[in-house]
Amino acid sequence: MKSKLTVVKVGGNLLEDQLRCQKILTAFAKAESPKILVHGGGKLASKLAMDLGITVNMHEGRRITDGATLEVIVMAYAGKVNKEVVAALQKEGCDAIGLSGADANLIQAIKRPVAEVDFGFAGDITQVHTKTLLALLDLGLVPVFCALTHDGKGQLLNTNADTIAAALCGALSDHYEVTLKYCFEKKGVLRDVEDEASVIPEITPNTVQQLIATGVISDGMLPKIHNSLKALQSGAKAVHIGNEEIINGTAKHFTTLRHE
Amino acid sequence: MKSKLTVVKVGGNLLEDQLRCQKILTAFAKAESPKILVHGGGKLASKLAMDLGITVNMHEGRRITDGATLEVIVMAYAGKVNKEVVAALQKEGCDAIGLSGADANLIQAIKRPVAEVDFGFAGDITQVHTKTLLALLDLGLVPVFCALTHDGKGQLLNTNADTIAAALCGALSDHYEVTLKYCFEKKGVLRDVEDEASVIPEITPNTVQQLIATGVISDGMLPKIHNSLKALQSGAKAVHIGNEEIINGTAKHFTTLRHE
Repeated sequence: MKSKLTVVKVGGNLLEDQLRCQKILTAFAKAESPKILVHGGGKLASKLAMDLGITVNMHEGRRITDGATLEVIVMAYAGKVNKEVVAALQKEGCDAIGLSGADANLIQAIKRPVAEVDFGFAGDITQVHTKTLLALLDLGLVPVFCALTHDGKGQLLNTNADTIAAALCGALSDHYEVTLKYCFEKKGVLRDVEDEASVIPEITPNTVQQLIATGVISDGMLPKIHNSLKALQSGAKAVHIGNEEIINGTAKHFTTLRHE
Repeated sequence: MKSKLTVVKVGGNLLEDQLRCQKILTAFAKAESPKILVHGGGKLASKLAMDLGITVNMHEGRRITDGATLEVIVMAYAGKVNKEVVAALQKEGCDAIGLSGADANLIQAIKRPVAEVDFGFAGDITQVHTKTLLALLDLGLVPVFCALTHDGKGQLLNTNADTIAAALCGALSDHYEVTLKYCFEKKGVLRDVEDEASVIPEITPNTVQQLIATGVISDGMLPKIHNSLKALQSGAKAVHIGNEEIINGTAKHFTTLRHE
């Protein structure tokens, strides 16, 4: 039987809120190992860009990463957010190691081909180097990934943190029974976005299509659901979507995506 | 007999110069493993601070690290410089992993006690966690350290890159025959600072005192020499001081500090 491993993805909005961030990191530090944290940081990157007078360009909610924006993202994600999270986890006795996809060549990507929109230095993942990742886990270390990959030719690339989390699940599910936990501000996937009491408890690859077709799942939730399905397809046992209380299992209501 | 290990410290000024930086990283990538790179990045941090309207305060050439400055330093050192160096080394086939002292709790420090001057979030190293560092080296990884440590209580600290390099030498010299290479703009310790042909080829702990007393070693060279002596005392076999050509051993002239 495979050992269990948890991949937790925490959205940048949660980390912005200092009190909530502390709660999340304490819960994560206490969660059973092996475990991996993946974090965003988009809000901080946008603020830093503004402070530096760099225009943030978005297309349908996705950032367009020109050269100046990439520099800002690298500083915000791999610098400030990643190292502050690592130091905070170390304080809690969790032996965190901060990583980008370039480090130890853990996550390779290709620059997204230019189609209708040129997303700039956005990276689509091609390979996770599982062997090194497993070796780091075997040392008892807790990888903390920021949303950066590289192309192996010297170029850093901006890759969505949800996508990274899903790719890590896929890469590790041959060796572990992997559960993916997507933490964000809401209690789960809501039937009515205005009503926190309308959490859909369970979704399967079969029921998800109807939820998308009827518009229950839309906007910002769509990429999360697509990544959840990808994680399931690539071998994750289940995906939990909810607020920070899903980390230590105290959440009464959250959404579970599982195979049929 | 112990295996050999090289710790290379590259000054921020060298990394600023794109052409020279490329040459350095190519030479480092080709150098024999195991090896460790330690880099500065003070100039970039100063530029970023200026762009963000944050005043850089120095005392006798040492940065005073207030809260805002620490944020800038973390973004510049652990973000931009560290990840760009790692991506560039990966391109050259060198399996680099970017690290701060907080990552895997590798280098702990204490906030420098306030004496005449309050240096703010400056860290004096108390412990290198050699076991994890050795394990990373055993995986064939090439650690790339930026000039940051942490106090184990959640606080990141700014620690001079020369000091980090010396501390790593000390920590590893029980297990390896360690050579420390300090790369900077000059060919070595110069008898006459205006004359690049006046490189002092060899210095020992005995001869160094006279060089300091007579003012041959002064200003910016002093901390480098002090750290070199510390590295020797703590077990390094030799310290080479020179420009980037000392990395691959093509330098005709450089300064070696060795035991008597």
